[in-house]
Amino acid sequence: MTITQIPDGHVTMPKGFLAGAVSAGIKTRIGALDLCLLLSERDCAAVGVFTRNQVKGAPVILSAEHVADGKLRAIVANSGCSNSLNGPDGYRDATEMAQLAASQLGLAVTEVAVCSTGVTGVKLPIEKVRSFLPTVAVNADGGPSLAEAIMTTDTHPKSVAYGITTGAGSYTIAGCAKGSGMIHPNMGTMFCFVTTDADVEIEYLRALQHEVADETLNMVSVDGDTSCSDTFLVLANGAAGLPRIEAGTPDAEEFRQTLLSVCTHLSRELARDGEGAKHLIEIEVTGVTSLADARLIARTVSTSPLVKTAVAGLDPNWGRVLVAAGRAGVALEELRVSMRLQGELIYDRGKALAFDEAAMSKRLEEEEVRIEIDLGLGSARATAWGCDLTADYVHINADYRT
Amino acid sequence: MTITQIPDGHVTMPKGFLAGAVSAGIKTRIGALDLCLLLSERDCAAVGVFTRNQVKGAPVILSAEHVADGKLRAIVANSGCSNSLNGPDGYRDATEMAQLAASQLGLAVTEVAVCSTGVTGVKLPIEKVRSFLPTVAVNADGGPSLAEAIMTTDTHPKSVAYGITTGAGSYTIAGCAKGSGMIHPNMGTMFCFVTTDADVEIEYLRALQHEVADETLNMVSVDGDTSCSDTFLVLANGAAGLPRIEAGTPDAEEFRQTLLSVCTHLSRELARDGEGAKHLIEIEVTGVTSLADARLIARTVSTSPLVKTAVAGLDPNWGRVLVAAGRAGVALEELRVSMRLQGELIYDRGKALAFDEAAMSKRLEEEEVRIEIDLGLGSARATAWGCDLTADYVHINADYRT
Repeated sequence: MTITQIPDGHVTMPKGFLAGAVSAGIKTRIGALDLCLLLSERDCAAVGVFTRNQVKGAPVILSAEHVADGKLRAIVANSGCSNSLNGPDGYRDATEMAQLAASQLGLAVTEVAVCSTGVTGVKLPIEKVRSFLPTVAVNADGGPSLAEAIMTTDTHPKSVAYGITTGAGSYTIAGCAKGSGMIHPNMGTMFCFVTTDADVEIEYLRALQHEVADETLNMVSVDGDTSCSDTFLVLANGAAGLPRIEAGTPDAEEFRQTLLSVCTHLSRELARDGEGAKHLIEIEVTGVTSLADARLIARTVSTSPLVKTAVAGLDPNWGRVLVAAGRAGVALEELRVSMRLQGELIYDRGKALAFDEAAMSKRLEEEEVRIEIDLGLGSARATAWGCDLTADYVHINADYRT
Repeated sequence: MTITQIPDGHVTMPKGFLAGAVSAGIKTRIGALDLCLLLSERDCAAVGVFTRNQVKGAPVILSAEHVADGKLRAIVANSGCSNSLNGPDGYRDATEMAQLAASQLGLAVTEVAVCSTGVTGVKLPIEKVRSFLPTVAVNADGGPSLAEAIMTTDTHPKSVAYGITTGAGSYTIAGCAKGSGMIHPNMGTMFCFVTTDADVEIEYLRALQHEVADETLNMVSVDGDTSCSDTFLVLANGAAGLPRIEAGTPDAEEFRQTLLSVCTHLSRELARDGEGAKHLIEIEVTGVTSLADARLIARTVSTSPLVKTAVAGLDPNWGRVLVAAGRAGVALEELRVSMRLQGELIYDRGKALAFDEAAMSKRLEEEEVRIEIDLGLGSARATAWGCDLTADYVHINADYRT
């Protein structure tokens, strides 16, 4: 049994997956890829989790319906327009987009998920989808272009793949994700698509996806705003020809671990590429009485504007971290709390330790900033990922449409 | 019966209140007022609400103890250091600060509240309090200097006073507040001190303070971070010589309305003076099934970084407002929702209306931006106050200690 990260991994590395993308002019930047297809050549077990925002984009509503039976064959996605807050027109356009992809690929419409991302409240230019979707050619090298075509304010595409070799043979799990603003998933993230050529039993896959989403994508925050388009899809087509993975089978644990690795990798990349961010901030909270409380504290610290601006300013202002932890609503005892910054103990069970502020400020120049908080109360732990808040975040979002 | 706002109102306008402030060198800016006293010449009915943050500054813990019996005679306050996260040393310094003020003013130590604001996790320079507190002279013109001495990153002091004339005579209610960062009160705000020479029954005052805090100070957010020092104190000394105000007495409603006016005024000023802010944003949510839900939606919109940056960029990107409303966790029906921006209907029961974006962008240059959301479901309503998020907020907080 070996699990290996594959260099330059992408979503069409698992057998039987094809992808392609074109520029349809939905994004304003000329020539930018913005319309794409992902196709499995075989039937897939498929599961999805979607935004819990009460305002749901039409594509989210439609895709949730299509994946409900545990089956998908394809995803059609666009960037540049999220087709949300468009009322019945939006749902009609999302349905037509699914129908266009289905007839082009020879599928039933319910085998296609639709994912749209970009500005809200603007009508989808469906005529551009009609004109350009037929020009999307899918092939086994298309994974990287798909990851690029779903980007909005992302500065680079985010893909990863792992190969797993068992006694019975080898298979692959790959994923791609997008999103760098309006990121505070309350289910999946903006978009995260995972492909695998393993054969996975659908109910096991469904349960596993929720567990993994809660531990990875739902622990990412760029700005605390939950999108109305968050979509996390996992497609397992069994093309590797290996025995079916179910709860309790010998290979289930490796599959679980690797799916967790894929989504952890993508979660960290989402936080690292937060709008305007210069630092990935990893917050580990230990010594908590319950997992839910540990996650709540980690997420609260990761969303604190004062923690985020302190990191941006290379300021080891640790008090802000503990004050943010204190407002999570979880009971804590100040004299049991400890905290480390970049591995160095600076607050020990209620007592601030002297440390070299200039040296620590220098260490905050590292691209990854690690904050550890120990509550000293229990054994539950959680990790959250965020990023610093810079003036660039403000510029990106103040001038988003101008 | 008349209620009139008094020009240049401040907290020593009610009879029998004295105040004064000096520069003790606790703030780094030379000559800045940072140590002050507020004294009532007579016994007061006094009530306080304090931060719900699990990390509480030592002065908050001490002041909550001292006000528990419904009596206070004085407040001693400093800016430049919040004396929080200092463990037992912090509590000892807060206690000494109360003792110093009590002996100087001839009071019992439990008659003094202590309020400290500024950086967290730094020891209070108690020797500066020892040296400079004796130089604080209190008098009836000291209200403005007290409001100045409690400022941190505030750009201007915030005071207000109302005069009420009833058949029996006249009395005054006044207040001052401070705070422009780490402002998301979960009880009071950073500091809000209200004085009145009315004679108010303590249990009525206690209930009323909670009601008013929930409707005003608890609906303000600058950055979503709840301080560990939030303190809201009301002191009523009865010096006007009028009949006691109790629940159900003829004058109770005017007292309630005026206290609400004082705290609404100060709440709006806190939001308007948010760190780096160029706009006060007022969010009114109507048509909700419960008051709690209405407040939750209004507060969620007021804290959305994407809404705040859109206002900073003069971008009428209304979709961000509705997506933020959607993540509050309150059930809504898209086809019943309507929204106005600066009074203009731009989203009518699920349908986006065409509007002149350039003209609306121009209207967003106004210093007050008003957002109205109607859910079309019930009759509850709430108002929240926030401010825009500018690059200056980031600069102020990234460079706070450098």
